[in-house]
Amino acid sequence: MARVSQEHLDARRRQILAGAARCFARNGFHGTSMQDVLKEVGLSAGAVYRYFAGKEDLIAAIADDAFGSIRRAFGEAAELTPPPTPDVLLSRVLRGVFEGQVYGMERRTCAALIVQVWAETMRNDRLAQTLRDGYTGMRASWAKLVEAYRAAGLMPSGVPADDVARTLIATAQGFIAQEALFGGAEPEVLENGLRGLMSMDPQKIS
Amino acid sequence: MARVSQEHLDARRRQILAGAARCFARNGFHGTSMQDVLKEVGLSAGAVYRYFAGKEDLIAAIADDAFGSIRRAFGEAAELTPPPTPDVLLSRVLRGVFEGQVYGMERRTCAALIVQVWAETMRNDRLAQTLRDGYTGMRASWAKLVEAYRAAGLMPSGVPADDVARTLIATAQGFIAQEALFGGAEPEVLENGLRGLMSMDPQKIS
Repeated sequence: MARVSQEHLDARRRQILAGAARCFARNGFHGTSMQDVLKEVGLSAGAVYRYFAGKEDLIAAIADDAFGSIRRAFGEAAELTPPPTPDVLLSRVLRGVFEGQVYGMERRTCAALIVQVWAETMRNDRLAQTLRDGYTGMRASWAKLVEAYRAAGLMPSGVPADDVARTLIATAQGFIAQEALFGGAEPEVLENGLRGLMSMDPQKIS
Repeated sequence: MARVSQEHLDARRRQILAGAARCFARNGFHGTSMQDVLKEVGLSAGAVYRYFAGKEDLIAAIADDAFGSIRRAFGEAAELTPPPTPDVLLSRVLRGVFEGQVYGMERRTCAALIVQVWAETMRNDRLAQTLRDGYTGMRASWAKLVEAYRAAGLMPSGVPADDVARTLIATAQGFIAQEALFGGAEPEVLENGLRGLMSMDPQKIS
């Protein structure tokens, strides 16, 4: 009985967040009212306010969930032995995020939501903290991977691992921006593009 | 006399756009009123409305100017012979954009403005067209550069040039997002990170 009830509560919570996420993706945080969210999820104010006190709570929970999805996708991909090269790993993570891991949202909607969260983050300290924590964690995970590439002799040690980590995270973020703005950002494009870059030899050039 | 007058008009126009850009960077497009802009630039409504009919006009002009700056910085860097490798070129363009080319804005403010423009673009067709045109132009320019790298024997031809172009643009966009969200995105980080990636050899791995 208690178990069914918890499942029900969780499902209801997800239903509310998914609806709110669609609203934010479509109209931005400021362009969305709680009334819009109620209409989108088809629930009464009482049913929604039981879970979330307002828009701030909704977007904080969405950002938490989205970061959780990204971290899980990354963790699963990075644990393979040997770790996949950045082109394979990054496109795999992006594919996971874009293919319904965030409330079953389709690619463009999911990307639009993330960009709206970025815009809102600049004037919302709670969101800023969530994103900063997520970014710090991703940087550390990538830097560890870069060390693993080095230990395997796949990357020379002249460049700070953290710089490579931040550049790879940037590439994924930029692809999310491209998908949000223009659509058509298939993860294979990123995989190919990174492979192309990896096939350039700076030694040969300078 | 006419010449002085045109200079005056141009300076006034830039003054208004710079003020509006600061407002948008700080509070987003929806969080900014025309009243906020008037206050920021210290001009009367009459003086401002003579140039711009409203917020829509302001953000469209800002996006045009920002894209113009990016295109110029890219054009100047790409014209060098031989063309700089992506690590050098991309960090040079980013440095130009971040170091006051957009209304003399400092790095973090400029990055915040760009992310706010992205968020607004998703519900503004005029802005979407401006950004799409700019993106299409950048893709073509980068793809041409990739062909030049190939002609010089610096990159094998297995990967579509457009995929490399989109990946490089994504990396710059992601760095702008990182600067807006967290600060500290020095262009050297990107330069180092790309050099690190370029020093990986996918042949050695697979």
